[in-house]
Order: sequence, then C-alpha cells, then structure tokens
Amino acid sequence: MANITKKVSWSSRGDEAGAAWEGTPLLNGSERPSVSRQLSGERRLFQIGRLSTVDLDEEITAEEDSTSWKPKEIPHNEKLLSLKFESLDYDNIENQLFLEEERRMSFLGFRCLEISRWVVCGLIGVLTGLIACFIDIVVEKLAGIKYQVIKENIVQFTEAGGLSISLILWAVLNCAFVMLGAIMVACFEPIAGGSGIPQIKCYLNGVKIPRVVRLKTLVVKVFGVICSVVGGLAVGKEGPMIHSGAVVAAGVSQGRSTSLKRDFKIFEYFRRDTEKRDFVSAGAAAGVSAAFGAPVGGVLFALEEGASFWNQMLTWRIFFASMISTFTLNFFLSIYHHKPGELSNPGLINFGRFESETMAYNFYEIPLFIAMGALGGALGALFNVLNYWLTIFRIRYVHRPCLQVMEAMLVAAVTAAVSFIMIYFSNDCQPLGPDNSEEYPLQLFCADGEYNSMATAFFNTPERSVRSLFHNPAGTYNPLTLGLFTLTYFFLACWTYGLSVSAGVFIPSLLIGAAWGRLCGILLASIAQADSTWADPGKYALIGAAAQLGGIVRMTLSLTVILVEATGNVTYGLPIMLALMTAKIVGDYFQEGLYDIHIKLQSVPFLHSEAPATSHWLTAREVMSSPVTCFNKVEKVGTIVDVLSNTSTNHNGFPVVVQVSDNDEPAKLCGLILRSQLIVLLKHKVFVELAQSRLTQRKLQLKDFRDAYPRFPPIQSIHVSQDERECMMDLTEFMNPTPYTVPQDTSLPRVFKLFRALGLRHLVVVDDENRVVGLVTRKDLARYHLGKHGLEEMHLAQT
Amino acid sequence: MANITKKVSWSSRGDEAGAAWEGTPLLNGSERPSVSRQLSGERRLFQIGRLSTVDLDEEITAEEDSTSWKPKEIPHNEKLLSLKFESLDYDNIENQLFLEEERRMSFLGFRCLEISRWVVCGLIGVLTGLIACFIDIVVEKLAGIKYQVIKENIVQFTEAGGLSISLILWAVLNCAFVMLGAIMVACFEPIAGGSGIPQIKCYLNGVKIPRVVRLKTLVVKVFGVICSVVGGLAVGKEGPMIHSGAVVAAGVSQGRSTSLKRDFKIFEYFRRDTEKRDFVSAGAAAGVSAAFGAPVGGVLFALEEGASFWNQMLTWRIFFASMISTFTLNFFLSIYHHKPGELSNPGLINFGRFESETMAYNFYEIPLFIAMGALGGALGALFNVLNYWLTIFRIRYVHRPCLQVMEAMLVAAVTAAVSFIMIYFSNDCQPLGPDNSEEYPLQLFCADGEYNSMATAFFNTPERSVRSLFHNPAGTYNPLTLGLFTLTYFFLACWTYGLSVSAGVFIPSLLIGAAWGRLCGILLASIAQADSTWADPGKYALIGAAAQLGGIVRMTLSLTVILVEATGNVTYGLPIMLALMTAKIVGDYFQEGLYDIHIKLQSVPFLHSEAPATSHWLTAREVMSSPVTCFNKVEKVGTIVDVLSNTSTNHNGFPVVVQVSDNDEPAKLCGLILRSQLIVLLKHKVFVELAQSRLTQRKLQLKDFRDAYPRFPPIQSIHVSQDERECMMDLTEFMNPTPYTVPQDTSLPRVFKLFRALGLRHLVVVDDENRVVGLVTRKDLARYHLGKHGLEEMHLAQT
Repeated sequence: MANITKKVSWSSRGDEAGAAWEGTPLLNGSERPSVSRQLSGERRLFQIGRLSTVDLDEEITAEEDSTSWKPKEIPHNEKLLSLKFESLDYDNIENQLFLEEERRMSFLGFRCLEISRWVVCGLIGVLTGLIACFIDIVVEKLAGIKYQVIKENIVQFTEAGGLSISLILWAVLNCAFVMLGAIMVACFEPIAGGSGIPQIKCYLNGVKIPRVVRLKTLVVKVFGVICSVVGGLAVGKEGPMIHSGAVVAAGVSQGRSTSLKRDFKIFEYFRRDTEKRDFVSAGAAAGVSAAFGAPVGGVLFALEEGASFWNQMLTWRIFFASMISTFTLNFFLSIYHHKPGELSNPGLINFGRFESETMAYNFYEIPLFIAMGALGGALGALFNVLNYWLTIFRIRYVHRPCLQVMEAMLVAAVTAAVSFIMIYFSNDCQPLGPDNSEEYPLQLFCADGEYNSMATAFFNTPERSVRSLFHNPAGTYNPLTLGLFTLTYFFLACWTYGLSVSAGVFIPSLLIGAAWGRLCGILLASIAQADSTWADPGKYALIGAAAQLGGIVRMTLSLTVILVEATGNVTYGLPIMLALMTAKIVGDYFQEGLYDIHIKLQSVPFLHSEAPATSHWLTAREVMSSPVTCFNKVEKVGTIVDVLSNTSTNHNGFPVVVQVSDNDEPAKLCGLILRSQLIVLLKHKVFVELAQSRLTQRKLQLKDFRDAYPRFPPIQSIHVSQDERECMMDLTEFMNPTPYTVPQDTSLPRVFKLFRALGLRHLVVVDDENRVVGLVTRKDLARYHLGKHGLEEMHLAQT
Repeated sequence: MANITKKVSWSSRGDEAGAAWEGTPLLNGSERPSVSRQLSGERRLFQIGRLSTVDLDEEITAEEDSTSWKPKEIPHNEKLLSLKFESLDYDNIENQLFLEEERRMSFLGFRCLEISRWVVCGLIGVLTGLIACFIDIVVEKLAGIKYQVIKENIVQFTEAGGLSISLILWAVLNCAFVMLGAIMVACFEPIAGGSGIPQIKCYLNGVKIPRVVRLKTLVVKVFGVICSVVGGLAVGKEGPMIHSGAVVAAGVSQGRSTSLKRDFKIFEYFRRDTEKRDFVSAGAAAGVSAAFGAPVGGVLFALEEGASFWNQMLTWRIFFASMISTFTLNFFLSIYHHKPGELSNPGLINFGRFESETMAYNFYEIPLFIAMGALGGALGALFNVLNYWLTIFRIRYVHRPCLQVMEAMLVAAVTAAVSFIMIYFSNDCQPLGPDNSEEYPLQLFCADGEYNSMATAFFNTPERSVRSLFHNPAGTYNPLTLGLFTLTYFFLACWTYGLSVSAGVFIPSLLIGAAWGRLCGILLASIAQADSTWADPGKYALIGAAAQLGGIVRMTLSLTVILVEATGNVTYGLPIMLALMTAKIVGDYFQEGLYDIHIKLQSVPFLHSEAPATSHWLTAREVMSSPVTCFNKVEKVGTIVDVLSNTSTNHNGFPVVVQVSDNDEPAKLCGLILRSQLIVLLKHKVFVELAQSRLTQRKLQLKDFRDAYPRFPPIQSIHVSQDERECMMDLTEFMNPTPYTVPQDTSLPRVFKLFRALGLRHLVVVDDENRVVGLVTRKDLARYHLGKHGLEEMHLAQT
C-alpha cells in the first residue's frame, strides 16, 4: 500500500500548518488572542453541517494519538487533491520585461491580440461542441445496441421463463462498460473522476489543481463518461462537458500541447495565468452551453464561479464561445439526425418543448412551488449528508484503484439488478400510444399493446427518462411507480456520485426531482378533481426537478437560467427561481452544497466572494504569515538556491527588499518575485560574477518565461555549481516592482476584498515606513469561516 | 438669460483643469513629457468620431478668444450635467467608528441585515412593478381615447372631405400632451429628460449625478413619459422604467425621503454609497425586468453597466428584485385585463409569441443575419451621428426651457403631420382579417372590409406597431409602405431623442429595425419564390429590430438576453447575438453608441472596464495630481475651514499624515478623510481646545454621519467662530486608517484595475517610504482614451 498512498502529517497546531501553504512561516510569536478565544481549541478540519454526526476530526485525533504523532496516511483518492494547492496569479506580473513589451506594442498589435482572443474563443466553442457531439452520438449508438440486445433477450425469455438470464446479461453488460470507465479513471487519471465541476470551480476560483486541464484528463474524461452512461449508472453526461470545455480552452489558448510535445508557436502572449483563466472560463461556459443548450446559463455559470471582476469584453467573448459551442453541436447533430441545417435544437439534454398555453401557471400555485422547493432542499440536504458519509468511507477504505474499480462494478450490477427487480414486480401497464414515443417499450407481462411503465423510467438513458417524466401525458405513470422509482433512484444516485468514474450528478438529480414532482402533480390533481387542468403533472415534474437539483448543487442564478434555457420557455422563470431559492435556503440550513462538500473534503483553499460577516475584528497583522523570507535586489545565487530547495517551507513568492541600514530592522519593500521566475533565472544562469565589475547577465526575454509556463521545472533539476553559488543575481528587471500592499491594521474583509477582486496570489503587508512585515496568501484568508459558534479557523494539512 | 445659464470658464490648460475635479491642484511642475508629445496641443474636449465634421472645441476656442478669456456660457441643458461630478465611494470608509460598530454586531445582527437587504429588494421589485403597471394602464387608456377620437373624426371627414381638420385635431392633441410633458421636464426637473439610461449608467459607474435619484425626478419622469407616449412622439416608455426603478431603489433603501422630510428610522445601515449603489443596481434591473419582461436581462444590464465586482449574493438579490418586479407587473396587469392570476405574460413591451416551429431558422440564413447586423450597425451609426449633431445644436441654441418646450411641440406636430400625410397618400389597402387584430383599423380611402396598412404602423402606439411588424402574416405590408415608414420614422426618432421630454429610444429603434427587417424578409422571399417558408418576414423583422437597436445603443450580452426573453423563445439566441455583434463591430467603426455620446457630451468622467490598450507607458507618477493638500492627524480647525472653503480647489478627499521631521519633506501617510466627514465634524463642533489638556471632544457616532448622508451641507452654511478656529480637531477616529495606496511607478492599467475593481474614489500614491506624493482620482484616469492617433488626453471643463 505504501506505493500508492502518501505519508502526510497533520499539523499539531493550525498556526504552524498555515506556514506551509505558499507563504512564509508563521511563528508562534504571532498574536492571535481573539481567534484563540473563539476557537474551540480542538483540531477541526472541516465544519460538518448540523445533521452530520460523524466527527471526522476526533477520529483523526484519535488515530494520530495512537500512532504517537506519526504521519497519517491519506488514501489515494484524496491524496491526489490534497497535495499542496498552489494559487493562480490573476494579477499580471508587471515587471520591466513585460512593460517593455507592452510599450513596444502598437495599437495595431493590441488589435491583433484582441482578434486572436476572439479566434481562440471561437475555436474553443467549435471543439467543445464537437466533443459534445461525439459523446452524444457514441452514447446513443452504444446504449441503443445495449438496450436492443437486452430487450430481445427479455422478450425471448418472458414467455419461455428464465428471466434471470436476462438479468445476468444486463448486469454483465453494465459491469463491462463501467469496468472499462473505472479502470481508465482509477488507474490513468483519477482527476478525471466525478463531474469535474468542483475542480473547475476551484480552478476558476484561482486554485491550481494539478493536471486538471491536461489533454490526458480530457481523453479519460470523454471515454470515461461514455462508459459510465452506457454502463447504465445513475449518472449524466452533462457535468463532464464543463470539465471537457475547460480542458479544451486551456489547450487551445496556449497554442501548444506539452503532452504531445507540439508547440504551434501561436498565442504565446496568452501563456500566463491571467489570460489562461479567462479562456478556461470561456471553455467552462461553452461546456455548459453544449450540455444544456444554455449559452446564457453558461456565461452566468462561468461568472458565478469564476470571474472576480466583471469585464464587458471578456463576458462578450465568453458568450461568443458559448453560442458557437451550441451552434456547432446543433449543426452536427442536425446532420446526424438527417435534418441538416435545422439549428433550433437545444444541447445534449433536451427537456423537450414546453408549450406555455397548456402549462401556464397561476397565482395560487406559487405557494405550492415554494413548498416543493423546500422539499427539494430537504431531500437535497439528505442526499448530500449521505454522500458525505459515503465519501468519508471511501477516503478511508476504498482508496486502491482495484477496490475502486470493483466498487464501480458493484454499483453497476446493483443498479441493473434493482432496475430489473423494480420492472419485474411492477404491474403498471400502460397502453402504447399511437405516436409510440417510447424508445424501448418493454411489454414483459403486460397485455399486448401495452408496455411496462416502470421500464420507461429504468430501461432507458436517464436523459430520455427525464423527458418522459416532463412530457408524457397525465396518467402515463401511476403514483406507486413514481414513488418507488424516486426512492430507489435516490439511493442509487447517491451511491454512484463519487465513484471513480467520470460522470455528472445533474441528470440523476433532475430525474429524482422530476419523479417526485410528477407524483406531487398527480396527487394535487386527484385532490382538486374538478379542475385538473392546472395540475399538469409535467409542470410539477419540472419544478420538482429544479428543486431537487437546486437542493443538491445549490447553484443560484446560473442554474435558473440554465433550466429556463433548457425548457426553451421563459415563462417558468419565476417558479423555477422560487423553487431554487427555497431549496437553497432550506438546504443550507442543514448542509452545504454537494460541490462545496467535495471541495472541502479535498482541503482546497477556496475563497468565497466575501469574507465571513463577523471577521471585522481580525486585521492583516493577525492574518498574515510572518516573518517573511525576502531577497535583496541583488542576491547571492547560493542563498536563492538554498531558500528554494528548502522543502519544509516551499514558498512561492518572495518580497524583494532594499536594506536601508545594517541593523536588523525590516527592509523596505521594492518588489515581489515568484519561485517560477527565479527557477527560470537559475536555469538560464542569469548570474553576475562579483569579480567582474560590469554586468554580464544574459538578456532574458519574456519568451523564456512563457516557454517554461506552466510546468516550471523543480529546483532539484537545476544544477548550480559551487562557483555559481558565489555569483550574484540581479532581480531588478524581473521582479514585479509594484506589488499591492496593505498596512497592518487593515481589517480582514478589506484584505479579502482586495485579494479577491484582483485575483491576487501574494499580498504584502507593510508597516507605515513601507517595510515588509508579513505576507498574506490565499490560505491565510481561506481558513476563516463561519461555523456554528461564530468565526472558526480551519487547520490545514501539511500536504 | 443670466438667471437660467451659468457662467463657466473653460480652462486654458488641461493640466490645470484636472485639478478642480475632486482631487488636488496639479501644478505645472508635474512632468508629463510623453503625454504632451502624443497630444496635439490643441484644446480637445471630446473626441468626435471620424464621420463628424463639427469641431466643437474650435468653436469654443474661438468664442473664448473673442471674449478675451472671459467665462463662457454653457447653455442650460448641458450645464445641468456639466457641474462638477463627484464620485461615489464604493469602498467602505473603515474608520474606527465603523469597525467598532461592525465588531459589536453579532452574527445574528448580520443575519438581520441580510434579511433586510432581501426585504428592500422585494420592495423595490414591487414598487417598480406597480409604477410600470401604472404607466402602462394610463398610457393605454389615454392613447385609446386619443386614437378613438381622431379615428371618429377621420371617418367623419373622409367622405365629407376636409380631412385637414382631422390633421389639425391630431396635431393639436399631440402637441397638448407633449407640451405638458415638456414643461414638466424643462421647467421642473431637467434631469428627468431622455431615457435616463445614460444617467443610470454613470451612477452605476460611480459618478454622482446631481438629483438623479430624487423623488421629484421620479414623479416628473413617470408623468413625462406618459405625456410623450400619448403625445404620439417616436418614443418608448421602456427606457424611463430603468431610471424609475433606480430612483425607487435609492429611496426605499434609505428608509426615508428627504424631499418629503420623512425618516422612517429603518435601513439606517444602508445609508452609504456602497450599499445604496447595490440597491440602485437592483432597481435598474427591476426596471429592465418590468419594461421587457426580462429578469435575467435586467440582471445582466445591471452587471454590465454597474457592478465592478461580481458578488454571488448581490447578483441573486438583484435577480430577486427583477423577478418580483415582473411578477408584480404581470399580476396587476392580469387583474386589469380580467384574467386574474394568469402570470405568463411578459413586461411592458410584448413581442408576442414566436412559435419556433413556423419560424425556425436554417444554417444558410446565418450569413443573411450577419449582413443584416452590418446594415443595422451602419444605420445605427448614421442615427448616432445625426443625433450627435443635433445635440450639439441643441446645446448651443435650444437651452432655454421655453425654447425646449416649443421644440418638443414642433416635433409633436410634425410627427402627426408626417404620419397623416403618409397615411393619406398610401394606397396599401389590406383586407381586414377575421381575427381583426388591428386595434384602430383606419379604412380611409380603402374599399369596405379593407384597412390602410400604413396606418397600422403610424396610427398606433409604437409598441403595437412593433408587434404588428413581427407577427402580422406575410403580405400584410407592401414593400413601399415599409420603405417609406422606415425612412420617415428614422428621421423622426432621431429628431425626437434628446428633446426635453422623458422618453426612451428602445422602441423607436426596434420599430425602425423591424420595418426594414421585414422589408428584407419580403425581398428575400420574392427572390426565393419557390420555398418561401424560410423567409418568414416576422423573423427578419425581429433580426432587423435587434440589429438596429444594437447599432444604436451598442449593448451586448444584456441586450441579447433582453431580446431573447422578450421574444419568450431561446431559439433566436444565436441569430440575435450574431446580429448584435456585427452591428456593434460595424457601428463602432464609425461612431460610438448613443448613450456613450451623450455621456461624453455631458463631460462625465466615465470609467470603462479597462484602461486604454496602449497606456502602459504611463505611470501613476504622470497620472496623479500633486502636490496633495494633506491634514495632520490633529489639525487646526481654522486650517480645515480654510481649505474646505477654497472654492478654487474644492477637494473632496484629504490624506491624513504624520510629520516625521520638521523639514519640508512629505509626511507619512496614516489615513484618508473625506470632505463630507469633515463637514459633519465641523457641524457638530468636534473640537479640542488646546488649552485643555484632556480631550473634550463630543463623542460622534456613525449615526451622525448617516443622518447627514447624502446631502451634506456646504461649508458656507457652517459657522465657525474665531475662537473655534483656534481649536484643534482630532481626526484619528474618523479617518480611514487603511486607504489603498500604490507606488509611483505603477503603470496606468494597474492603477486603473485597482481603482475600477474596488470602486475607489481616491487612491493615494506614495513613495517607497510611504510618504504621500500624489492622489489619483476618477478624472485622472477617465481623461485618457484611445483616439485616432493613439492615446489622447481629454481636457476637462472647470465646472
């Protein structure tokens, strides 16, 4: 097990743990009286909602104690995300090199850049659309074949007896597909597991998640999602599209692929975090757009999750990418469906046409929608709590790839078995309509000309099931069928999310919600028998689906717009908004959203859009890490190498200072330099020999930094000889001479606002003489959060 | 004339002019070599697009010379907006008082605040919806009566002869209404003129436009828009709704009305710019939402124009206000229309139902849509250029209220006359359909059972005309009618925008575009006779309307969403986006957007979302105003009064410093205090007598500042005796101890980004010892813009 797990030590004190993130050591000397008073003093890794009864932290404490402070093992699946997360730098490094380049550039040059940005966004849209198209067609083909084979088998054995053979066939087929998908994810690229939305949220928030936007991840993601959907799991193919779009964007915008070792020598200007993150926003939006046919929803998703600063041109480009993505998908799907050029189709998931005449809602239905929202919130919180426990269990016990593959196969088999049993014991027979809207109607034990209604829900891809629940006429399902379906699918979906397969939670959530929503509609219609027109079950299915999805993922504006766009009808804006809002309020009372839970479980230093409300009594002085490792403007190479090689600190940003006097007082700030820049400088041996009086530094260009971006080599790979160690290095040209600073008395919300609004990575704290006294990094801000007992401070894992 | 115009002096040098804005005097000693080189050296007030041939600045220079440097008269209409615009402070003043209050507040307190924010947003939505409802019903009633009277008159005189009497009746009725509206606007509240969108854009951008969010403005706006729409002008009632929503928001959120002298003692926490601006965003969104039935579009409008920082909760609240607004409007309109509870109606402007089956578009239509977008952009630019010239003309010659009223009446009469003549000479007779969709079908000289098609377009409120153009079946209009209508309405609308009436430009633009769009559709259908289904004229009318509107106002994402929501069908998202995008690109090539033109003509220091591309060679050192008037931490009252009373500088923000030594070197920065705070301090006589050793300062509370907000008394109204002048004032408690600072070498884009992202009003520039060397304010940043010859610097009007 040693070869697949990593030894990690939990820090014994949060204050020290803070040091290792990317800042500087925080000595015990730093005073934090108010915090200490508020904190319970116990080790508290993450705050669990009030429904939760498992106290992970106590567990950990116990384990730590039993191993007498030895490092604790973090299992494979979490380890991959609990590595030291670095931050992205949304703030341009405006050093001399950069400014010189910008100043050289003519107005025409900027115009060309602007045009290339549009071209890149167009490419992102086209490629994302093509990927969506590929996934859709392959899934449809494979699932069609699978269901056809099973259906023929069932028909064959229904009369002859021996349906257990059909069950086994079904389970084996599912297991085979899922095994393939799980092996890819578990063994080759674990980051491709799940929907990828939490990872993209983190990336857009400014956290660099390792390998999240690599080509390999994309390939595994695409084939993984095909396998898991065809494998009949309770999953959707929509979430992964968002991740796929983001990877496409990260690749296209850099004009090269490190994996394929191809550099097209284009878009070199975009090889930095600022630009890349903008494009990744566009990619995520294009992904949402392709998945749900919701370009505006995609833009809002990207903005809600990512952009810290609203920029009109950026938003417009993101929208362009989204539109192109939907357009490409629709165009190629229309060709595939032999209706070339008919572009009025939505994205991957098709909610079907909602006619507002037949499904208009009335004033007195508003309270019903709100009540359904509350139910969705409660059910969503239950889902999240169950999934939270399951994830904890998985982190502890299911961390070896073979176990993960086996669990995935087990879930696939159980899904097939449960579905089969439900269909087998269902006696909800419905007459086959003249339009024959069912794709694979199963007759089973029904009379001729009838089909099994339970099979519509279970013996189908989830997307089709959702559409049936929305649009099949009243009376297609009987209430018992819907109730049983909701119950079983709820637990299946909950068990499935978090498996080592590439799959999304959107569609299962919608399906669960649509089922109980339709049930509500049927019950309401039976209560108000006289006027049954108002309680159209399809309408209630839609609201239920929205409420359930909102209760699980807790997205707000973007989800409203996505659902409205997916229905293709703006009439339902208000009911969907009300349901989502209620679901969020009710759900948040019990437990956080599913994505947030998973982000927290991965110990990601995620920055919300505002500082915790009651954090005004904290100032930069208490929050910052200090003392700070600084460099002089002209620094000895040996010192730099030693600092960079010090694995116990592993700092990423270093203030550059000028010593004003020889005594020990802190030096004046004159710049900021990053580890990555220093490594490039060391690699290119940009040294000044002391003996020579004039500078012999090799002239470095921005290109050298861009070529190394984003995979800067580790310091260990750079050899520096003993002679070179004695040389000096002049940082003046490369450091950012105007880093943002704050005084020590700045309150935490103020620091937070500056940090978040500008997307900073390092914020230097200075005293009133402009001397460096501390450094604030992402982890210094992210660790404060509102708990049950007021402001709490999270402790951080060393690795 | 002296009583209605104001003497204003144009500065002779831009550098000096910069001083008077809200910063500090900019001495000639400040070096700006690179700028000077780029500037032509001539006085250049605003950059006129390349189509423009009028050089206003030279005119002004000539006039100035002729009056030998005497102050120049700025006419009434412009004067009102060319007063010194102050900035809003989106950055919290985190002084000791504020921090103490925040620290005292419990978590529950913050929760209550959050709930009040939601309540306020709900109220904003309800009130905005009610206002929209009121406007809609009154306009419908009055317009109905007017058209009925005229129609009866026309019918009476058609056979008897003497139609000129009808014409006179029509013109007189129009003039009467318009006169009423124009008098209200011109004499009582000129800021209520126009659509109000430029003003709200400025407000959300952070410019304090005097009286823009007052109750009186709202009243004049509402009755003014009713008069102008009923008066038959080529205007819409949608733009003013946005302004109305903003006023409602500003009023409700403050929990008091200064005009009515009522203070409800609620929402006192929200009495500062930060909070107020958030609510005004919500109000503007609610206004858009009510006007177009576009809640999402409203949110995007507010964000596109206003929010500098994307905040999830704020966005969600804005969306809530928007939704409530649409809901309220629909609810009351449904009662008014005797279909209570039917909520599926859109906002004020109803685009009618677009059925996607009949109006689906095809791949090969995309180039056509793009071409229409280009045409819309070109026509929009023409519109803007004409309106620009007209506005210049109005600023010079039509600045007295009586002239303005007369011009409005003239336009009203001409509109009636032109409409009548067009109808009279039209021979486009169409059979009356069985559904009789025309509200006021004019038979005129048509055969029985037929009606005059030209009258559908002219003899109708513009909203109805738009709907007819979108939805009337093919063949309802003949091409000549549409062509003539486009031509006349184009010039009428252009003449109308900018009159001293309260009215919007959205609907006229849509109408012009719909007319030529429909014309395009008809022409296309006649070319491709075989398959006429694809060239549905209604579809092309929609795209034309979008292109024309986009070409005039140049809004991007928000306009796309507004139009999509107004059509109630997301299918047209791509074509509308393409048309808008092309229109923007083509239009921007010739001339700016209409709102931007008017903002520039009012010399508003408007900050765009990014610094001009080629401004990297400018640094804070060149941009800042210096030297700065600073105060000591404990300052003599006399000094403060003198500085505040100095009308030649009129600074609004003062760095507070600590002298480290007695020599002349700049002192160390320790805070920032605003004029408004000093005035409150002076008013409350918060003095320390030097003779007494212990502090006897009266304890001021935040409440005192909030009570004075936002109408702080002028310094002249505060009497300070000679004895008091000798007292000292301790600023420590009131100043913001942690103002944001930048070093002198910071590049302009970096300063700009910080300024814009945080919504700052003052940004202190310090040297590397934290000594104040300059101050950057909004005007220092806003004056740089990209002109034809690269970066240009605008000169600023002294007043």
